[in-house]
Order: sequence, then C-alpha cells, then structure tokens
Amino acid sequence: MEIISSCSQIQQTCMQARQSGRTLALVPTMGYFHDGHLSLMRWAREYCDMLVVSLFVNPAQFGPGEDYQRYPQDLDNDVHAAMEEGVDILFTPARSSLYPDGFSTWVEVQGLSGKLCGLTRPEHFRGVTTVVCKLFNLTCPHKAVFGQKDWQQLIIIKKMTRDLNMPVEIVGRPTVREDDGLAMSSRNAYLDQELRKVAPRVYQGLLMVRGRFESGQDDRLELELELRSYYQRNLPQAEIDYVQIVDSNNLEPQDRVKPGALAAVALKLGQARLIDNILLD
Amino acid sequence: MEIISSCSQIQQTCMQARQSGRTLALVPTMGYFHDGHLSLMRWAREYCDMLVVSLFVNPAQFGPGEDYQRYPQDLDNDVHAAMEEGVDILFTPARSSLYPDGFSTWVEVQGLSGKLCGLTRPEHFRGVTTVVCKLFNLTCPHKAVFGQKDWQQLIIIKKMTRDLNMPVEIVGRPTVREDDGLAMSSRNAYLDQELRKVAPRVYQGLLMVRGRFESGQDDRLELELELRSYYQRNLPQAEIDYVQIVDSNNLEPQDRVKPGALAAVALKLGQARLIDNILLD
Repeated sequence: MEIISSCSQIQQTCMQARQSGRTLALVPTMGYFHDGHLSLMRWAREYCDMLVVSLFVNPAQFGPGEDYQRYPQDLDNDVHAAMEEGVDILFTPARSSLYPDGFSTWVEVQGLSGKLCGLTRPEHFRGVTTVVCKLFNLTCPHKAVFGQKDWQQLIIIKKMTRDLNMPVEIVGRPTVREDDGLAMSSRNAYLDQELRKVAPRVYQGLLMVRGRFESGQDDRLELELELRSYYQRNLPQAEIDYVQIVDSNNLEPQDRVKPGALAAVALKLGQARLIDNILLD
Repeated sequence: MEIISSCSQIQQTCMQARQSGRTLALVPTMGYFHDGHLSLMRWAREYCDMLVVSLFVNPAQFGPGEDYQRYPQDLDNDVHAAMEEGVDILFTPARSSLYPDGFSTWVEVQGLSGKLCGLTRPEHFRGVTTVVCKLFNLTCPHKAVFGQKDWQQLIIIKKMTRDLNMPVEIVGRPTVREDDGLAMSSRNAYLDQELRKVAPRVYQGLLMVRGRFESGQDDRLELELELRSYYQRNLPQAEIDYVQIVDSNNLEPQDRVKPGALAAVALKLGQARLIDNILLD
C-alpha cells in the first residue's frame, strides 16, 4: 500500500492508472476506521482494480463549537487496517494542501443541505460537498462508496454528482452495526460506559417505528410522536436534535408515509451527536 | 465535425478520446461567433488532438431583466465557422439537459465574484462557474481556453480550478479587437450605427489611462477620475457601471498602481453593456 499526502502526486497517480485502463474506486473517510469503513473498502476492493481510501478530517464540515479539534484519530491503526483490506493507496492530505490560504470556492446543493442535520449544522453539507468534489477531481474514480448511516450525505452527494455531471457513480452501502444494534461511528468513542450501554436504544426506537408502520400506522405525525416519546421514555439522557420521517429521495415530509420512506434521527448523548436511520419498507 | 447535444454522448465521446491518449481542448462559448471566439479555437486547434467547442447560452449567468431572451444567435453561421476552424465537436446542449427540473447545485468563488461586474450582476459569476464546472466534467479537457476581455471571469475560473483541484489548465488569450479598437463581443450587435461609431472610445479611454500611467501617474484615484471624466466628455451617451484600477490577480484596488495592474470598465451604451480592460505594464 502506498501512502500519499501530496495533491499533485495523487492526481497524477490516479489519472495515469485510469489512463492505463484500470478501474478506480474511492472510499472517502475521516479515519478512525471501524467495520463500517472496512465494509465499504471490502465492497470497493471487489469492484475495482485500484482502491483509493482518503483519510482527511475535513474542517469545512465542522461548525463552530463542534468536535473538529477532538475528532478521534489513530493513524497507525488506520494504516494497518487499510493494508489488511488490500487498499492500494491511502491518501492523507494535510489541511493546508486541501485548504490553502485564500481558499474561497464552495460547492453547495441547495434545498437538501438545509434539511435534517442541516437545520442545526447549517454549513456542514457545503463542507462535505466541497471536499468530496475536490477528492473526485484528485482521484478521478469510476465509483465512490459511502455509508447509508449518513443517508442525507449520500443523497446530497448523488444530487451534486448528477447536477454537476461528474463522471462518477455513487454507491451507498448498508449501515454496519455493533452486535447490540448501535450504528458504528467514530463518534461512538465519545460515549462513556454508561451511555454506551443505553445507546442501542437509538436503533431500537427506529425498529419500533418500523414495526408500527408495518402494522398499518402511516400517519407521519403520529409515528414521529411515538418515536419521540419512545426516546423520552427509554433514553432520557438524550437531547433530541430531530426525529423525522421523510421521503428517502428528497427528504420531504409526507402526510401519509409510503413504503420506502426514511425514519431519521439525530440525538446528543453526552459528548456524542449520534445519527441513525431506517427505511420503512 | 460532429454536433452533439446529448450530455451522456459528449461525456462518453470525450472520455473515450482521453482514454485513448488524445489531448483535448475545450473552448466554452455562448455562440454568435466573432474573431474573438475564432482566435481561441485557432490557438486550441494548434495545441490539441481533439477540439471541443461548447455553444450554450447559459441562463444561470443572466440576471432578471438582462438580455438572456434576446442574446444574439446564429447557429448556421456558427456551425459553418466552427467547421472552417477545424473544430472536432460542437457541443450544443439544450437548456433542459444542463438544467433539468430540480437542479440545485452551485459552484461559487466567493470574494472575487462580488467585485467589478459582480457589483451589479450579483449571481452572474456563480452561473458562470457552475456551468464551466459542468462543461469540464462533461468534456474532461486538458486545457480550456477563455478570452481576456472577460478578465474577471478568467481569473475566477482559474481560482475555481485551483481551489477544487480540477485537472484542467486554464488558458487566457488576448482580446481581439475591430480595426477601430472596439473589443469584439457578441453584444456589439446591440449597438445602432450611431453608437457603434463612438463605441471605440471605450478602448481609447483605456489607452489614455495606460499612457498616463506610463508617464508616471500612479495614484489610483486620480487615474480612475481621469478615465471617468474621459468617458463623460467623450462618450456622454454611456452610463458608467464601473471604472476601476485593480490588482490583476485578486481584483483588489491598490492606492499606488503597480505595473501589472488592470484598468477595467463596464459601460451601458444603448442596449449594450460593454466591458473592456487593459493591463498597465
């Protein structure tokens, strides 16, 4: 595995590989790998000739007061894990090379970026789409792979790609969960033992609401209310950011919930802001 | 020469050409070709194996009340001229294929886009950078060629390309002028006979101010004042939009004008909004 930090070098390497007919896949990450990341790498490894994983804690997607400064990092472990997964290139740019002084260009998907997580993180998705656009230009992948835990991010990136005619296919892969159901996330590291024990209830609430939908309840407000009170009863430690049931493609609320809708939640549990979602099939 | 309107077809054609080792150049235009456009094509023709010219009157770069609806068009003549210049592909997308319903992604270079023409055309450059980003993704050129008459556009596109790590080199080529000095522009078609006669004074004013700089005047406010009063005396028909002397790289005003500064003007002359500029060397 090659570790590359230089933007010009990664671009040259990837363009040469593409030129020579190899298929490229990119898995963009912020590091601190867990099985969620590794499952994306495994899927991509099967598909492509050359697997590029980027590891960059992107300051542009953190708001003031958020956890940019303390976002968990463990480069040695990440390098080891990426090698184990057969990654060809680990791209580890410095902040100053992706955002040099005077950087001033932004890519923004309007509308979608203001919903759900965008309500409390107004510039988050602009930071995501900008860095992903940069990574696509640097690595010219045929496919890029993202986790469905960040469902809103996934559909915003799909929309950007389509709107801007980017020659890359966006692949979303299922959320990987701990044995007790908690969605894997680097931010789970913020949970103390006590909170870690109750955190699976985030997903249990989602399973509950899916069950209610399957048994015939399709009134959105009613379902949201039930989920909200589930958390209030079973996870009183949590501060609810949002509990929403929306069309999974455009994130718009529907009065009558239809199959394929998404139940999505964000909760603050101690130092961790956890998100999770489930498709109501 | 091939004429392609489909986005998927141009992308496939250009990516295959690039894959096969050919060098590609793109000349983005809004059509109604004059010698300015043709000079860009000629330069690019020398450089590349495959010359793509896009012809698209981009609605996103026109503001409300501007001339989008009446922007001059002459497709037959443009096709003929492009063939004469040895263009390989003329890309003529429909508005609805570049901006389908629900389009909502924008690329914006902050700062630079608000200066000079951005003062009275606040969304103009966002429209330019967005469509140019799309065209780059569709045609994957090694080089893209722009005229220096639109100096601000040129440096904004250079900035976007650098900030977003786009794998394309931006080439600026000198303004082409009529025999009497008027900068060639499709919008010159809006000038009636009377105004066409006096329009060269736009450039004569710029030559005057360059002369004043060469003979030692380096006080910016003084130079701007002299140019402004030149137009008031010699081109009283014109409504001055701006008269500015700025750093040619970042468009910032300098108290003391240095060699390499740019004198840039925009004036409304009848139905035409004319822009022109000159480097103070």
